[in-house]
Amino acid sequence: MIEPRIVKGFRDALPQEEHLRRQIMEKLADAFALQGYEAIDTPTLEYTETLLGKSGGETEKQIFRFKDAGERDVAMRFDLTVPLARYVTMHRDELALPFKRYHIAKVWRGEKPQRGRFREFYQCDFDIVGSDDAMADLDILMTAQTALVLLGVPAFVIEVNHRGILLGYLEQLGIAQHNTEILRSLDKVDKLGWQVVETELLPLISAEMIAKLKDFITPASDAWATIAKLRNLMGDHASLLVLENLFRQFKALDVAHFFTVNPKITRGLDYYTGMVFETFLLDDRALGSICSGGRYDNLMALYSKNPMSGVGGSIGLDRLLSAENILSQLNISERLRMMIYAPVDLAKVGALMRMLRDLGVVVEIYPGQKKVDQQTKYALRKGARLGIFVEGEGYTLRKFVERESLKDLSLEALIAHLKEHYLA
Amino acid sequence: MIEPRIVKGFRDALPQEEHLRRQIMEKLADAFALQGYEAIDTPTLEYTETLLGKSGGETEKQIFRFKDAGERDVAMRFDLTVPLARYVTMHRDELALPFKRYHIAKVWRGEKPQRGRFREFYQCDFDIVGSDDAMADLDILMTAQTALVLLGVPAFVIEVNHRGILLGYLEQLGIAQHNTEILRSLDKVDKLGWQVVETELLPLISAEMIAKLKDFITPASDAWATIAKLRNLMGDHASLLVLENLFRQFKALDVAHFFTVNPKITRGLDYYTGMVFETFLLDDRALGSICSGGRYDNLMALYSKNPMSGVGGSIGLDRLLSAENILSQLNISERLRMMIYAPVDLAKVGALMRMLRDLGVVVEIYPGQKKVDQQTKYALRKGARLGIFVEGEGYTLRKFVERESLKDLSLEALIAHLKEHYLA
Repeated sequence: MIEPRIVKGFRDALPQEEHLRRQIMEKLADAFALQGYEAIDTPTLEYTETLLGKSGGETEKQIFRFKDAGERDVAMRFDLTVPLARYVTMHRDELALPFKRYHIAKVWRGEKPQRGRFREFYQCDFDIVGSDDAMADLDILMTAQTALVLLGVPAFVIEVNHRGILLGYLEQLGIAQHNTEILRSLDKVDKLGWQVVETELLPLISAEMIAKLKDFITPASDAWATIAKLRNLMGDHASLLVLENLFRQFKALDVAHFFTVNPKITRGLDYYTGMVFETFLLDDRALGSICSGGRYDNLMALYSKNPMSGVGGSIGLDRLLSAENILSQLNISERLRMMIYAPVDLAKVGALMRMLRDLGVVVEIYPGQKKVDQQTKYALRKGARLGIFVEGEGYTLRKFVERESLKDLSLEALIAHLKEHYLA
Repeated sequence: MIEPRIVKGFRDALPQEEHLRRQIMEKLADAFALQGYEAIDTPTLEYTETLLGKSGGETEKQIFRFKDAGERDVAMRFDLTVPLARYVTMHRDELALPFKRYHIAKVWRGEKPQRGRFREFYQCDFDIVGSDDAMADLDILMTAQTALVLLGVPAFVIEVNHRGILLGYLEQLGIAQHNTEILRSLDKVDKLGWQVVETELLPLISAEMIAKLKDFITPASDAWATIAKLRNLMGDHASLLVLENLFRQFKALDVAHFFTVNPKITRGLDYYTGMVFETFLLDDRALGSICSGGRYDNLMALYSKNPMSGVGGSIGLDRLLSAENILSQLNISERLRMMIYAPVDLAKVGALMRMLRDLGVVVEIYPGQKKVDQQTKYALRKGARLGIFVEGEGYTLRKFVERESLKDLSLEALIAHLKEHYLA
């Protein structure tokens, strides 16, 4: 006998959880598809060299890497972005360019397992590769907004910035040589507070400079006021004009209320090169960003002499799933579920079951021979609201919640009752 | 620079192919869910011991196995059945029993790559664990039939058998000591023909016995005639009664025309213990079975002193996808796709795009600045049937197939036209 165990950092999905995850993934996939994004898939295993480049770096410690039976050095993908770069490089001529794709799939990272963090998890990415145009930035931001609205995510705000703004200001202040440290510190303000950040920065730049930075990254009352403030501080910087143009477009599209400017957002140090964004629930900012992304310019540089730039976003599926207070508000319709008690005269249920399925009702006959009570227990665990006994000439409809039964219904009367009371 | 490559035996899915696969998977998932099957998920990586037991055997050569960073001996799952057994053993108390689950997910096998066979592929399984009852066998067969009908698979037949029938007959003939060799040989009749099988069996059993077997496994004109013939040859064997009962149930449910008896089907040697089935397209039997399964009794024996029996089926997703002649017949509705030409006055498209999406129309603005011809080329590659120019006060609708344009449409006229001609 072998003790059944799960590998450390991995987990099973029980039916209720998997049902919810699938519903959310389908809704998001549908939202992406409606906006012209195409689904793709890439292999779970890639050459390690493809994933890490020649150096490796931090990521190397985290990947699941091994030699396959043919002694190939392979690894499980740790994100969906590097495979996208490899994919676009190889299939350039087979794709509609600019290439708008989405990819909702598992990735693997051998991180130290923590509460709510696993070594196998989903990423939910949407990107446009091969367009430098501001229209592509807008497309990604509108896709994020539309997907969250279609999913039914309550009150959220997408906070937009352009990496060039803060970098331009640091240059104007003459402290650009400390870019790396300053950005890294500012990134921690929300978590650690200003005092900690100040202490970190004081060895590098003057208190006056720190005060200027604090003012600079503090948003004003709304997006336009923040843009005006930034212009006031740094003049008509090119990055600021890009940002301002986006907000003009939001206004024209009548979606400005979903967006604001947050001059603090830079999203890490190396990857992004232009517009960047994060998304927060108004009622639960502490949850962290539920949809983030931005523009990057060097996606395919590892593989191609003619790399294309891109812009994209990623929805935090696991984060959304962990926010129990919002799950009930999502735009997910649950089907009516029913169970027919066994044993049953099958000649009386074939047509009934087909009619119910055509109405989108989940219906099953109890798959065994047990006492009525045990069958009811099963029905309730499966989320059934109704049971059916086939008795005599007609059907008895048992309502579990109401604890009542309707007897001697004809097939027509049963269907009519369901339509009126449960399927309206 | 790194040469972008795909690992041997793996492949990318291009958008058109992935779209089709996703549509089929969603349709099947929906069919399973409508019949009370619940989705689950299990980790990609399991302890090798969990997957192979203590011996390993044939499978051992095929799995992707390695030591993770914690020196655990792990492997990528090679099917969804062994993980199901592990899952049910561990979560028994958290599940509604009998446990009806479906699982559509990737598995990995390091087989020698052949035409149409890859080292990463999908399995699409549905099972009932924890019911010995004939009702569970019927449920699986009805689920196979319903799923294929809902998917729109044209003219198919589900060929049913019971492993006990042929085994019982071999015992009656007094040649049960050659079970293994006989079943293995008979399994190849369709591929290699009777002469080859006869040559293989002659060293073991007499020509008379071979003739009896040939007669036994040859179906009669229909299911009932075959059952009568089998009864004539072997009497009222218990397995035959199980099979006969199934066909009485098909008749009561008015689905008998989807099923027949094929006494030759045994589905391998070790795994199945009762009812077994395979499914063929009437117009393309050579494609092989598109849905197979049966009853097995020892699923969890590796992990538990109280194992539960099960019955299940598996749809051959890749096989279906390879049958190009049937893909066009599937019950898959394609959305209307449109592209709005750039540049565009955004104030005139926000409401339009929201209305179109609410109607289920895929709509996007070309994400860049290119000449009209290049934008049209993009639209056609994305499968758009219609383009929209926002000009002056109204909208121009360009019909790509018809090569005509409707000009100066108001928003209302445009929507009305689409509803009448494209969305009926």
